[in-house]
Amino acid sequence: MSQVKIYDTTLRDGSQMEGINFSVQDKIQIALKLDEFGIHYIEGGWPGSNPKDIAFFEKAQKISFHNAKICAFGSTRKAETKPDQDKNLRLLLEAGSPVITIFGKSWTLHVKRALRTTLDENLKMIDDSISFLKSAGKTVFFDAEHFFDGYKQDQDYALKTIEVAYNAGADAIILCDTNGGALPHEIASIFSKVKSQLTESFEIGIHTHNDGGIAVANSLIAVDCGANQIQGTFNGYGERCGNANLCSIIPNLVLKMGISCLSEEQLKKLVEVSRFIDETANMRPNHYQPFVGKSAFTHKGGIHASAIMRDPLTYEHVIPDLVGNQRRILVSEQAGKSNILYRAHEVGVDLQPDDSRVTSLIDKIKESESYGYQYEGADASFEMMLREVLGETMNFFTLQGFRVIVEKRGDEEVITEATIKLNVGDHFVHTAAEGDGPVHALDNALRKALESLYPQLKRIRLSDYKVRVLNEKDGTAAKIRVLIQTTDGSHTWGTVGVSTDVIEASWEALEDSVKYGLWQKTKEEN
Amino acid sequence: MSQVKIYDTTLRDGSQMEGINFSVQDKIQIALKLDEFGIHYIEGGWPGSNPKDIAFFEKAQKISFHNAKICAFGSTRKAETKPDQDKNLRLLLEAGSPVITIFGKSWTLHVKRALRTTLDENLKMIDDSISFLKSAGKTVFFDAEHFFDGYKQDQDYALKTIEVAYNAGADAIILCDTNGGALPHEIASIFSKVKSQLTESFEIGIHTHNDGGIAVANSLIAVDCGANQIQGTFNGYGERCGNANLCSIIPNLVLKMGISCLSEEQLKKLVEVSRFIDETANMRPNHYQPFVGKSAFTHKGGIHASAIMRDPLTYEHVIPDLVGNQRRILVSEQAGKSNILYRAHEVGVDLQPDDSRVTSLIDKIKESESYGYQYEGADASFEMMLREVLGETMNFFTLQGFRVIVEKRGDEEVITEATIKLNVGDHFVHTAAEGDGPVHALDNALRKALESLYPQLKRIRLSDYKVRVLNEKDGTAAKIRVLIQTTDGSHTWGTVGVSTDVIEASWEALEDSVKYGLWQKTKEEN
Repeated sequence: MSQVKIYDTTLRDGSQMEGINFSVQDKIQIALKLDEFGIHYIEGGWPGSNPKDIAFFEKAQKISFHNAKICAFGSTRKAETKPDQDKNLRLLLEAGSPVITIFGKSWTLHVKRALRTTLDENLKMIDDSISFLKSAGKTVFFDAEHFFDGYKQDQDYALKTIEVAYNAGADAIILCDTNGGALPHEIASIFSKVKSQLTESFEIGIHTHNDGGIAVANSLIAVDCGANQIQGTFNGYGERCGNANLCSIIPNLVLKMGISCLSEEQLKKLVEVSRFIDETANMRPNHYQPFVGKSAFTHKGGIHASAIMRDPLTYEHVIPDLVGNQRRILVSEQAGKSNILYRAHEVGVDLQPDDSRVTSLIDKIKESESYGYQYEGADASFEMMLREVLGETMNFFTLQGFRVIVEKRGDEEVITEATIKLNVGDHFVHTAAEGDGPVHALDNALRKALESLYPQLKRIRLSDYKVRVLNEKDGTAAKIRVLIQTTDGSHTWGTVGVSTDVIEASWEALEDSVKYGLWQKTKEEN
Repeated sequence: MSQVKIYDTTLRDGSQMEGINFSVQDKIQIALKLDEFGIHYIEGGWPGSNPKDIAFFEKAQKISFHNAKICAFGSTRKAETKPDQDKNLRLLLEAGSPVITIFGKSWTLHVKRALRTTLDENLKMIDDSISFLKSAGKTVFFDAEHFFDGYKQDQDYALKTIEVAYNAGADAIILCDTNGGALPHEIASIFSKVKSQLTESFEIGIHTHNDGGIAVANSLIAVDCGANQIQGTFNGYGERCGNANLCSIIPNLVLKMGISCLSEEQLKKLVEVSRFIDETANMRPNHYQPFVGKSAFTHKGGIHASAIMRDPLTYEHVIPDLVGNQRRILVSEQAGKSNILYRAHEVGVDLQPDDSRVTSLIDKIKESESYGYQYEGADASFEMMLREVLGETMNFFTLQGFRVIVEKRGDEEVITEATIKLNVGDHFVHTAAEGDGPVHALDNALRKALESLYPQLKRIRLSDYKVRVLNEKDGTAAKIRVLIQTTDGSHTWGTVGVSTDVIEASWEALEDSVKYGLWQKTKEEN
């Protein structure tokens, strides 16, 4: 088994996921990223289903892709229509992509209940549509929709649909588990059966959904049975529970099964591509996602942390660097001293295990965590606490008070103003600013108060702002945790604040963020 | 294959997940829920690792569980120590649970690098520890940690550890893929090999992790090869990428593989148990989770929605009701008219596909969604928009204005006050209230303004309040979406607000929430 082609359908099947809503520009950006990464086929959309997808293909035609072939997706012609008069097929040709993927029905239930046509007419629809597109000079892939369910209900008919597609000249046939319910042993036996009926080198693919929680395994099993094309999506996006996740499939193939669908060099970009797509889709990244998640190589238990320090293989199935990920050792009440020592070492503080300050730091962490703080995403707040225990403080300013006023009159826009009083060294500053919301106004006022004394602040800006309601069932009186990420262009650091008041929680995280940034700048200058 | 036992380790391995932090009370509540659900074994914790777990077992000893046996988890004795002098083994006995599960090393790398002892001593540790616990009258399970990695490196030694455990009297042996990296075909061949060396009825289990994204499939494959105990966690909690997810494994076994680990009646509580555990763990539910996620039976594409209305089997691998879940048809720009008509029908409004108001509703939805609104979690805001298009409004009051002041002085607590001006019919109301934060203050002021005119409001309360920062990279100036769930004890409804100002967004969702609640109450009274 030498080569397996990766067929990405993030932009088409992936966009069916609840919560995803790509703009045309989003789609172009993602296609460019996937091409750069090395994906072989990129399914851009279904021109027959919506105008946004037509616009995508118009733009895509003007781009030269380096690695990928762009594919347009659509259905076989309508029942009782000639192919050259079918609107869907016409739009597929107008999309101008080198590959056209059409799906047809392999399950008698769907032919009868969804299409409401005859079994014979459905075979003609597959035959006609493929022949028509082939005669227009296209590479044509045939997605045998619901193939596994169809095979289980009427094996002969399901196989017949494949045979018709093959004889009509399809360049690849993809067996789809559209409802995502097939079990591993079913995939293995049915896939092997079909494979044995086609020539060895013919491109035969697998397309699975995750409704049973086993889409990735089902794809790998199909490869074991001779699949040489895998269809899936980045981050497992897709209708219902999503499609097979390429972020898991690709590294399993390359690192464990010895299949060079991408090179090891390309694989190192996997995390970057995964996060770029989440960011563009405006989806909250799943931290627990295999290989690419933030937690995928994160060690929390004390026993794991100490073993990892001796040999990473003890608790890591692959080296995180191979997929562009990072090892993290968490600080939490479950963590033993090893974790604290590791984290302290990372920031350049070497402590001995028997140092009493380590114990008092652990106590402090436990107390804060029980209140709702979390240092897993707030490395700078942790470091500030660590340094405080060691006697090093970052008192660049002291808050005397602030007041935030949010006012709405009738239909006018909301006006938000923050005033702030600070002691900065010997100076007392009292100033005010407006903003796009209470936290933004407070941020603006704080910067205004500090910038003449600390011009370095100009290079520091917030890059991420997250709000998490902790005890959501308490409604609007719930406790709120704010996490802020701040950057100076090269470093990024995280800080945390907790309060029942979103503004106070934000202030806390903001104060830490600015103090830590100033402390770093001061250190660099010395 | 008749019976498979489910062994839940949510409270032990699950608590190793980044972001999870159970209190003793959380653990007791979850154990009671799992017992009521029908789980066979519940691993409560590792008494040797932290005082919280000791406290859990103290409480658990006083509870009579109906279905489950409680298990205490710990390691084999330390190297060069007598079992009766080993602190970890002593604490395991003191836990007072009927079952004790101990883990031992089956991988030579771990014996040498993590334990730093000899291969012979490790075998003695397994032998001694099991014999010691058996002589104290306990049921003893042996978790063969890293068994698959161990087998691949030194097959004879890995098998030897199993043999020693078996001969020492272990009541069950569990093969663990601790690093989560084993592939399906490896699980199948190694599991079958071990199974063939034990008596047919002996309890042999599988414990997998999800680092390769295939933990569920690996567990199912082990069952195919004769496993009669499955270890996993609810919602797939666990170190790194999590453990095998019981919420996927259980329905696959019961509904597809004909294995009665739980009855079909019990299975109907699956969603309830999954959400209870997320709620107790204060984890954000994964909506895309197979079987139990909110999106698991959610149809977005127009073609899916129309087929589902003809026959649910066309796009659902199982009937949602079997696991206690629900079908949902989404309203979104990708949705066709079918989705809108379905949703309108659900709230008792029957519209014809050619009604021009349907088109204007779709346009309105597209416009709002492009601004950041989302109706997937805000059924009441959608219904209000629908009824407005049909000419039915819910004008119980009109906002003239509000002002929120948040003030902090020195180290004092933050004080928050909201004032509000409303027209309520012919009345003008101007009032004020304090609160635990700006949104809570505004909520209090609104209720105070309305309650004498609408005493029904007392029965309406917010049950959930969520804040999502939409474009997080814009920092504190980002757009914010607020989703509020409100309940009157029997119904629950969701509303949405979007603004760069968290207070304005909250106000919007709050206003819809109260208006919709009053409209429902008025309808009931008529």
